[in-house]
Amino acid sequence: MEFQLIDRIRERTAQGREDVRLGIGDDAALVAPPPGQEIAIAIDTLVEGVHFPQGTAPADIGWKSLAVNLSDLAAMGASPAWALLALTLPTQAAAQTRDFIDGFADGFAALAQPHRLALIGGDTTRGALSISVAVHGFVPPGKALTRAGARAGDVVLVTGTLGDAAAGLQLLQQGARIDEGDGRAAYLIERLNRPTPRLAAGLALRERASACIDISDGLLADLGHICAASGLGAEIDAALLPRSSMLLGAFDDVAARDFALSGGDDYELCFTVPPARVAEVQTDLARMGCGATRIGRMLESDGVRVRDVHGQWLEVARRGWDHFAA
Amino acid sequence: MEFQLIDRIRERTAQGREDVRLGIGDDAALVAPPPGQEIAIAIDTLVEGVHFPQGTAPADIGWKSLAVNLSDLAAMGASPAWALLALTLPTQAAAQTRDFIDGFADGFAALAQPHRLALIGGDTTRGALSISVAVHGFVPPGKALTRAGARAGDVVLVTGTLGDAAAGLQLLQQGARIDEGDGRAAYLIERLNRPTPRLAAGLALRERASACIDISDGLLADLGHICAASGLGAEIDAALLPRSSMLLGAFDDVAARDFALSGGDDYELCFTVPPARVAEVQTDLARMGCGATRIGRMLESDGVRVRDVHGQWLEVARRGWDHFAA
Repeated sequence: MEFQLIDRIRERTAQGREDVRLGIGDDAALVAPPPGQEIAIAIDTLVEGVHFPQGTAPADIGWKSLAVNLSDLAAMGASPAWALLALTLPTQAAAQTRDFIDGFADGFAALAQPHRLALIGGDTTRGALSISVAVHGFVPPGKALTRAGARAGDVVLVTGTLGDAAAGLQLLQQGARIDEGDGRAAYLIERLNRPTPRLAAGLALRERASACIDISDGLLADLGHICAASGLGAEIDAALLPRSSMLLGAFDDVAARDFALSGGDDYELCFTVPPARVAEVQTDLARMGCGATRIGRMLESDGVRVRDVHGQWLEVARRGWDHFAA
Repeated sequence: MEFQLIDRIRERTAQGREDVRLGIGDDAALVAPPPGQEIAIAIDTLVEGVHFPQGTAPADIGWKSLAVNLSDLAAMGASPAWALLALTLPTQAAAQTRDFIDGFADGFAALAQPHRLALIGGDTTRGALSISVAVHGFVPPGKALTRAGARAGDVVLVTGTLGDAAAGLQLLQQGARIDEGDGRAAYLIERLNRPTPRLAAGLALRERASACIDISDGLLADLGHICAASGLGAEIDAALLPRSSMLLGAFDDVAARDFALSGGDDYELCFTVPPARVAEVQTDLARMGCGATRIGRMLESDGVRVRDVHGQWLEVARRGWDHFAA
């Protein structure tokens, strides 16, 4: 039974990777890593009602469960190769399980295929809906991006726009439907449900960014991790935060700012670059269709502080998501 | 918060592996695989009430969540190296969470340390208690044991004794306490809660066994996987099934036989060996303190059939655990 379910997903994911010697169906998979590369490995779990709202479409859950993991590889500057999937599903009618699996597999595969990611192992169990995915990617020795390399004076940048996913979640919680109105809700909810891991940007940042992290828990929390790992502080200019026109059309300026500062689930990259290289990095990322906006700089201090549009220091109460907080 | 919990476990697991370039604490771990080795990778999830009874001690849960995964590496003939842990815990008082984590970490580490297994990544989330562990081990190219290589005429063997874990589960469900009586219950429950992955045996079987699997779902189900993957059938002699004196002391012969045939969770190895090499394999495994008993042979047919002590074919209704069955 286990393999029948996992097989429905495997059938939809890219095959033919030469480095996969034995895929799904035995006690373990066998892979032959490329000589001279390091392997970046990450695992993340999504739980219904914690990491995605109840009622989220199976295809969106499949996409997101892979996306949040690929985002970790992006933040390391690694290129994806293999994934494992542990899927826990509630007891329900067989037809419902099959429908869920087929939708989940479609969403997972839609993201896996363009990256030639192979699903090499899986486990299915009964219980409350949750999904753990482990991913593996390659990076040349010593070239991985980490949180620890920022220097005082480095410029802080982020890819894309911030706050959309948290705004989408709020709209969903207020009962918005994606087929409503002017397309803003649809856009923001899509940003929540189908985040784009910034893999190409991560590769382009190797040997250029001094530190990098993906924004899963909110900008302040995640930039705080760079600060802690690098032994520095940072200041951010709220006026510089990149925000989508959809976000600014759907919420007032203060709400949009707070989503951008503290909202989780954007899966953009936050990274630091020496001042002399900022223009080059922005040009290169723009060429791949991924904006990179400077929002602040690293300081010889600790913690993250935020200047508002009037030049005053902001008090920011909510510093990010902590899924493990009671 | 996440890393504080995972750190309590990491502190207790083996450090100082030179192939771990970056451990827990960044977006991903970085490892440098040994040149010229394949990597065996497996993932398994344990859910409370499905894979272990409610009330199981946290240390036993920690041990077992790693053991079931190391058992997959054993079945491939791989030597363990790295693990990832995704831990989902219910919302509860902070002190309770800390106690659970400390116990879990002690059990996990007690099994990880002798194998020099490094915990390199983790994720903690809130939800119904469940644990996913992914493990990585090394095996020389082309030398891994699989389910697919058995030939007609090969002898079927198993390590250790069968049925103890299922008997332990039944005793627990009947309200047995481990401090009761003559030690039989304690032994059988320990076999359920603290299975020993047969890693050394798996290594010794490389280049000798033609096929191998670990017994997690019950002998009949798991030998059935070898049959399916090898395109063969098998016959088993019930009189030859290795059963512990504890099992035979606590249950009658028929119950003990059924536990040995269909009980899950033993995590012994079931493997096939050409007749000419059986004695050599048995001698080598005995030298490492691991009995290996011949129980049957592979046939040009399909499915697994069982002969009882009178030479009659047994009807066996329950062919193993299927955790995913509704």
